[in-house]
Amino acid sequence: MKRIYLDYAATTPVDKRVLKEMLPYFSEEFGNSMSLHSFGQKSKLALENSRQILADIINANPNEIIFTGSATESDNMVLKGLAFVKKSGHIIISSIEHPSVEESAKWLEKQGFEITKLSVDKFGFINLEELKKSIKENTILVSIIHASNEIGIIQEIAEIGKICKEKNVLFHTDASQSFGKEFIDVKKMNIDFLTASSHKIYGPKGVGLLFVKSGNKLTPLLHGGGQENGMRGSTVNVAGIVGFAKAAELCKKEMKKENKRQIILRNYLIKEILKIKNSYLNGDLKNRLANNANFRFDFIEGESLLMQLDMQGIACSTGSACSSFKLEPSHVLLATGLKPEQCHGSLRISLGRQTTKKDIEKVIKVLPKIINKIREISPFK
Amino acid sequence: MKRIYLDYAATTPVDKRVLKEMLPYFSEEFGNSMSLHSFGQKSKLALENSRQILADIINANPNEIIFTGSATESDNMVLKGLAFVKKSGHIIISSIEHPSVEESAKWLEKQGFEITKLSVDKFGFINLEELKKSIKENTILVSIIHASNEIGIIQEIAEIGKICKEKNVLFHTDASQSFGKEFIDVKKMNIDFLTASSHKIYGPKGVGLLFVKSGNKLTPLLHGGGQENGMRGSTVNVAGIVGFAKAAELCKKEMKKENKRQIILRNYLIKEILKIKNSYLNGDLKNRLANNANFRFDFIEGESLLMQLDMQGIACSTGSACSSFKLEPSHVLLATGLKPEQCHGSLRISLGRQTTKKDIEKVIKVLPKIINKIREISPFK
Repeated sequence: MKRIYLDYAATTPVDKRVLKEMLPYFSEEFGNSMSLHSFGQKSKLALENSRQILADIINANPNEIIFTGSATESDNMVLKGLAFVKKSGHIIISSIEHPSVEESAKWLEKQGFEITKLSVDKFGFINLEELKKSIKENTILVSIIHASNEIGIIQEIAEIGKICKEKNVLFHTDASQSFGKEFIDVKKMNIDFLTASSHKIYGPKGVGLLFVKSGNKLTPLLHGGGQENGMRGSTVNVAGIVGFAKAAELCKKEMKKENKRQIILRNYLIKEILKIKNSYLNGDLKNRLANNANFRFDFIEGESLLMQLDMQGIACSTGSACSSFKLEPSHVLLATGLKPEQCHGSLRISLGRQTTKKDIEKVIKVLPKIINKIREISPFK
Repeated sequence: MKRIYLDYAATTPVDKRVLKEMLPYFSEEFGNSMSLHSFGQKSKLALENSRQILADIINANPNEIIFTGSATESDNMVLKGLAFVKKSGHIIISSIEHPSVEESAKWLEKQGFEITKLSVDKFGFINLEELKKSIKENTILVSIIHASNEIGIIQEIAEIGKICKEKNVLFHTDASQSFGKEFIDVKKMNIDFLTASSHKIYGPKGVGLLFVKSGNKLTPLLHGGGQENGMRGSTVNVAGIVGFAKAAELCKKEMKKENKRQIILRNYLIKEILKIKNSYLNGDLKNRLANNANFRFDFIEGESLLMQLDMQGIACSTGSACSSFKLEPSHVLLATGLKPEQCHGSLRISLGRQTTKKDIEKVIKVLPKIINKIREISPFK
């Protein structure tokens, strides 16, 4: 049985072209980028070349890019790093942030910082007027996720950036899901800090970046040997970073065509799946990542759905992979106004570079049958 | 010209056997280890298998191993994570710690924690009596590096562990340089926290681990999606971790034979290099990593030495790669009682798995000539 992977929002396979680019940096050009000898200098060159590529993609300067070990680290670094600099103050986040922002904020709240969580509408969008009203004298940061990892909706990031600039407040966006998939210009969008991830765009796991607009100060999360301009200790993962840059380059090159292809497949999937009785789409259809579909089925446990699909060789998710072991309903879906039992009946199908029409047809064929079967034996109906 | 790499203390090439083990996890078995479907479960299996292998090597339980992005992260996680739990207190470190411990401690001092730095003797060893006397009512942690990244000396870690246990104080050791090279038993040595690194033992960069003895609490450094038992958010870098485990397994298997081989080569090097006039060995000869030689030459700038050697195809270091861009003398060498100008005349040659007798003979042939040449034009002599 061919395995069909439809969980690209959780992680992606490394593109073969990316792996090829990485390979020399494992065993041949393996020098420590901080070493002064030729082995080190070759690594340093590859590192700085990658930094330039990634900076260009978001219209940043290379010295504004800090490589980290993950998007989670980048998110923690912004929230905590700024909090440590400012020592006190008020932070605004949305109620549909990734746990790396949400949990960091929660921890900072325990340390005495004031946190405001903006509400979202039924599609997942924050209210710009509420944002304006929430910004206070002591607000040190606004952190709003660009595209939701669960429901795929894309916030009006340029509008948010504009408001923050007008109010003279720093603005961070977690772009883990959108980087490489949507157009981002940190200058035009007035972004001060931006998080991006390699493994969401066909690059290796264990690599992230943080854009820090020139002039903005953060306390390092990882104190150490002065790497990344003193902002992040750790021997630099050059092979991983080279892969990240190649992955981003490919995404940028293929973005338009690939998004178009995915939207056609995704909309076909949505159209067919919504024919199932008592089925709904979570999130907005229009302002949405090309690869994301998130459904809700009444009288269904998402987890049994997932298991049945897996037995048919189809891999998808109930929500975010990060929270898949939790039994609580998704905070993102709750924030959009759903009841806990509605959240539990949700299923995220996320498409990717290797997704074919045949894969989607298989889902369209299999999913309704599984839902009927589960509903037949469901105590909820 | 064959390039001769003699900077294995800075980083190592990924062993071909390690890379082979990693490869399937990039593009085939790439699932997110937190995903419930079969892709995720295969990754989870590989992850837990790796955890078991690494735990076994230090006689720990698998649930006591937390994977991180680097040894620097592990060090930061212990010092800060414990400080955040305890909220105040006294931390003891040595004066020859890696910057990841040293700088973390310095930052904590600014946050109100009390830091004691133990002195070392001319070989680099701490004084156990001084340690005993330094431990106070409010001491929350003793953190002593196992083997020095610069001068290679190996502290009496079992004795230190015994003292900490008697005094009921938590004990952390940064074993980045010794893990996979020296025998470590966290139970016998009474170790509460241990840092280890993948890229120092022919595994990939971007992977580290922290052993946390069962029952010890730390505040996570990376808040997020609940990975690593809630102790470290971030999508898990399974390919990297699989490589780390394979690398450690190979090191363990080959340790005895390889250490013996390296000691013969290293001692031959030391014997011949010390024939150079006004040359000295930094650190102790006996309690020393098999692969480390650290020399000092009067009237010489280590950096010009390094550059001249590099031009001859030989790569080594003046000290730690992490600090190679700093102009300050090594804090490790200063702590052993050397004057700044003596520190600047130091050269670290670190051997590895690919080092041959021919490589060492080349150094023995080339180094004296370079030193003579530099001394001839030196204004210091």
